[in-house]
Amino acid sequence: MNLLLLEEADFIAADRVILSDRRLTHMQDVHRVAVGDSLRVGRIGGLMGSAEVLRLEAREAELQVSLDQPPPGKLPLTLVLALPRPKMLRRVLQTVSAMGVPRLVLVNSYRVEKSFWQTPFLEPEAVREQLILGLEQARDTVLPEVLIEKRFKPFVEDRLPALADGTLGLVGHPGQYPPCPRGLDEPVTLAIGPEGGWIPYEIDLLGKAGLAPVQLGERILRVETAVTALLSRLF
Amino acid sequence: MNLLLLEEADFIAADRVILSDRRLTHMQDVHRVAVGDSLRVGRIGGLMGSAEVLRLEAREAELQVSLDQPPPGKLPLTLVLALPRPKMLRRVLQTVSAMGVPRLVLVNSYRVEKSFWQTPFLEPEAVREQLILGLEQARDTVLPEVLIEKRFKPFVEDRLPALADGTLGLVGHPGQYPPCPRGLDEPVTLAIGPEGGWIPYEIDLLGKAGLAPVQLGERILRVETAVTALLSRLF
Repeated sequence: MNLLLLEEADFIAADRVILSDRRLTHMQDVHRVAVGDSLRVGRIGGLMGSAEVLRLEAREAELQVSLDQPPPGKLPLTLVLALPRPKMLRRVLQTVSAMGVPRLVLVNSYRVEKSFWQTPFLEPEAVREQLILGLEQARDTVLPEVLIEKRFKPFVEDRLPALADGTLGLVGHPGQYPPCPRGLDEPVTLAIGPEGGWIPYEIDLLGKAGLAPVQLGERILRVETAVTALLSRLF
Repeated sequence: MNLLLLEEADFIAADRVILSDRRLTHMQDVHRVAVGDSLRVGRIGGLMGSAEVLRLEAREAELQVSLDQPPPGKLPLTLVLALPRPKMLRRVLQTVSAMGVPRLVLVNSYRVEKSFWQTPFLEPEAVREQLILGLEQARDTVLPEVLIEKRFKPFVEDRLPALADGTLGLVGHPGQYPPCPRGLDEPVTLAIGPEGGWIPYEIDLLGKAGLAPVQLGERILRVETAVTALLSRLF
């Protein structure tokens, strides 16, 4: 945790918060703070700054906060991702949030196992928890928007064209395609497939929605690694 | 597992192998192979190709192999990495192997907890196991070389200059440094710090060995994500 994120409900005054959950435990066990110590904090969706520990007890801490710095900018990106397996999903949500993706669409694909849609890790609170971990890691305060699309075809035909409008549309896909471009400034809509990749029908449909395949070389990367590698190369 | 890796000891003839360990279980449970099926295989340190299942029993399988393709090229890189915490170490070894790093140096740093050096995941067999998983993921056959340097100063002063000679020397480090370069063809020696980063003394010493700091932006990434992001941007 490189930034302690404050929720609206933590505030007891404009510049005072009381913490009593895992953040208190983390302050005590990892940061080993004492009264008078200063911590980096951010208000979810708002500014970042510092907080001084005013009072520290076994069950709660009171902090005086001073928020004056904007969070880092986001990438100009909509990321469309075939739903990963549950364990990978949690890590990918953290990575996406840490890397500054502002909008993530989790979509079905032929090679997504149906059981993946049943995972409790897709519940809004579970998704938010992983996104928060990513923000705390990277020092950001703004939660990405996460859309869940359980049906591939209606999403790609009816809603993706509007999302991708005015952006460079790309699909990360192994094969004889142009290499993924580097160092872009323009907005991008990027689709990344499941383990085993998109099927040709899906590549066709994504193409009709304006997303063209690009490749990263011969090596097949895990989804989490592919996400990081593609974003790092694009921007 | 996108490539079944064959060890020397598996071969009972020039084109025949017998498998009986986790690879057999994987063939049965994940690939659900039958006699006559074909699989992608590679010989550790050698060529890749295909194998036909000749015989499949509960405890062993016999395959006829045909190896004719070279493995993918490696990155022109020596990666010097402050030893990550044990759980992260395992994932980083897989990532490094999957991304095609030919040489990894795990080094001490002021912010590496001493206990990390006690982990059984640093035993040669445990390291090799994770590297193999990375090769199987990416479809490669050539194990990276892993060097372990428990003392920072003698390594950086006495051995790093020779390793970095004739390469572009870089240190990934947050701060007011030039941005990490993109799309290089030349060989690189890259050092990545621990959680919390290198201390100024270490940055100075790395600088004297020819490694100059570069940054990836304001966001603080987990070690595994930083490794992938830096490699993807450099090459």
